[in-house]
Amino acid sequence: MNNNSIGVFDSGLGGLTAVKSIMELLPGENIVYFGDTGRLPYGTKTEETIKQYAAGDIRFLLSHNVKLIVIACGTASSVALSDMRNKFTTPIVGVVEAACEAAVKLTKNKKVGVLGTSATIKSESYLRGISEIDSGIKVYQKACPLFVPLVENGHFNTEVTRLVVKEYLEPIKNEGVDTLILGCTHYPLLEKAIAEYMGEEVRIVNVGAELAKSIGNILGKDNISDKTEGGICEYYVSDDEKGFAELGGVFLERKINGQVKKIDIEKY
Amino acid sequence: MNNNSIGVFDSGLGGLTAVKSIMELLPGENIVYFGDTGRLPYGTKTEETIKQYAAGDIRFLLSHNVKLIVIACGTASSVALSDMRNKFTTPIVGVVEAACEAAVKLTKNKKVGVLGTSATIKSESYLRGISEIDSGIKVYQKACPLFVPLVENGHFNTEVTRLVVKEYLEPIKNEGVDTLILGCTHYPLLEKAIAEYMGEEVRIVNVGAELAKSIGNILGKDNISDKTEGGICEYYVSDDEKGFAELGGVFLERKINGQVKKIDIEKY
Repeated sequence: MNNNSIGVFDSGLGGLTAVKSIMELLPGENIVYFGDTGRLPYGTKTEETIKQYAAGDIRFLLSHNVKLIVIACGTASSVALSDMRNKFTTPIVGVVEAACEAAVKLTKNKKVGVLGTSATIKSESYLRGISEIDSGIKVYQKACPLFVPLVENGHFNTEVTRLVVKEYLEPIKNEGVDTLILGCTHYPLLEKAIAEYMGEEVRIVNVGAELAKSIGNILGKDNISDKTEGGICEYYVSDDEKGFAELGGVFLERKINGQVKKIDIEKY
Repeated sequence: MNNNSIGVFDSGLGGLTAVKSIMELLPGENIVYFGDTGRLPYGTKTEETIKQYAAGDIRFLLSHNVKLIVIACGTASSVALSDMRNKFTTPIVGVVEAACEAAVKLTKNKKVGVLGTSATIKSESYLRGISEIDSGIKVYQKACPLFVPLVENGHFNTEVTRLVVKEYLEPIKNEGVDTLILGCTHYPLLEKAIAEYMGEEVRIVNVGAELAKSIGNILGKDNISDKTEGGICEYYVSDDEKGFAELGGVFLERKINGQVKKIDIEKY
């Protein structure tokens, strides 16, 4: 791998929805992906622990000489982004900023809903991110702690999922939001159930897709591969490379090509 | 703390259902509890990783001079017990053996169901444990990966829980089991929903309670505290001591008295 790749990390598989978007928008870029499957989930842990894990994840990616770090984990972006920017000199992009910018552009009635893990919602990162761009927008947050386990167990649009979607989204729907941020990279796999419950008039912001768009801007023309195809992705995990290879295809919407390698993240 | 305590560990809160039973049956014993909340859940991880975590957890408990180690985590008991017994000289008790012995005594039609995490079921520990005692008993296993997140999000007996219970238990019920092992220390909190679905004639084996019974036998009269009350429990976690103190009471069915302390488990 050359020293010109994009480094992406997530607590597990979810970040692959962002990788999918990067592959579509920047098909010539090489990617190094790290999924911290040995320590997942991040969304239920404390700020201190999440920051410690994020720093190790970044040190691992830097050992592969990447030119940009993507925090493709809503939780780690929410909790650790500014700390990590102080700690490392390589540019770091998080899912939060990109999604906030998109939501501000989309909303007409100035009411935006945000769904995320417990840690993401507690951090109020999306709330702050939106207010900094337009303080006139009202933000309605909701922690959805059962969404990640539902996705990881294949409950994409079952009766169970629809009941949990109603439980979490009813208060946000009642507020009349016209834009809804899926603030966790697992959630796009529940998009159908969420969109059906919210109704056609509500626009849904997928953080992975927004992230991919902003990478191009941040790198600038000179630093983007001029190839229009052939980018390759190397996958690393901290546990269960087989499970990752099998389930990863669901998030990536294509087969994982090449090997998934297991590393000892506690060394970084 | 003296060097005469019982050391108990689990990946998180679940082991407190076993602590509750130990407090009831052996009220004079002091307990040192470690919940590995920084690395939970164990049930979705690989055998190698679970063994590595279990060894660290035991080294931490041994640093408190305990006389017996209780693996109050169905996953770690299933995957790591024999390895840990080879590695350490202090007696180690796991939830699996105690529950298998109880189920063999209870079943009349020689059909036993076992519910557990993905790692527990994959390990076939209960299947082997029961077969070793009575090879004529048929064992029907089922992994229930959504049960732990449901418990941790307060879904004890909701419509969502009842739907998931039906999804997981239908095949086992159809086989006509008369005894059902709840092979994970989180599952007693779903016992009402599970018992209602299975029907009155099915006996339910709670691994925590069986474990407490066997501790008395293993320690022997000379090593059990002769006090009939006043045993104290010290709580340690690897993340979020506040959340543990709050939610722990639900598992323990009483308030957590005293402080919960956070330690860095990666040092052990």
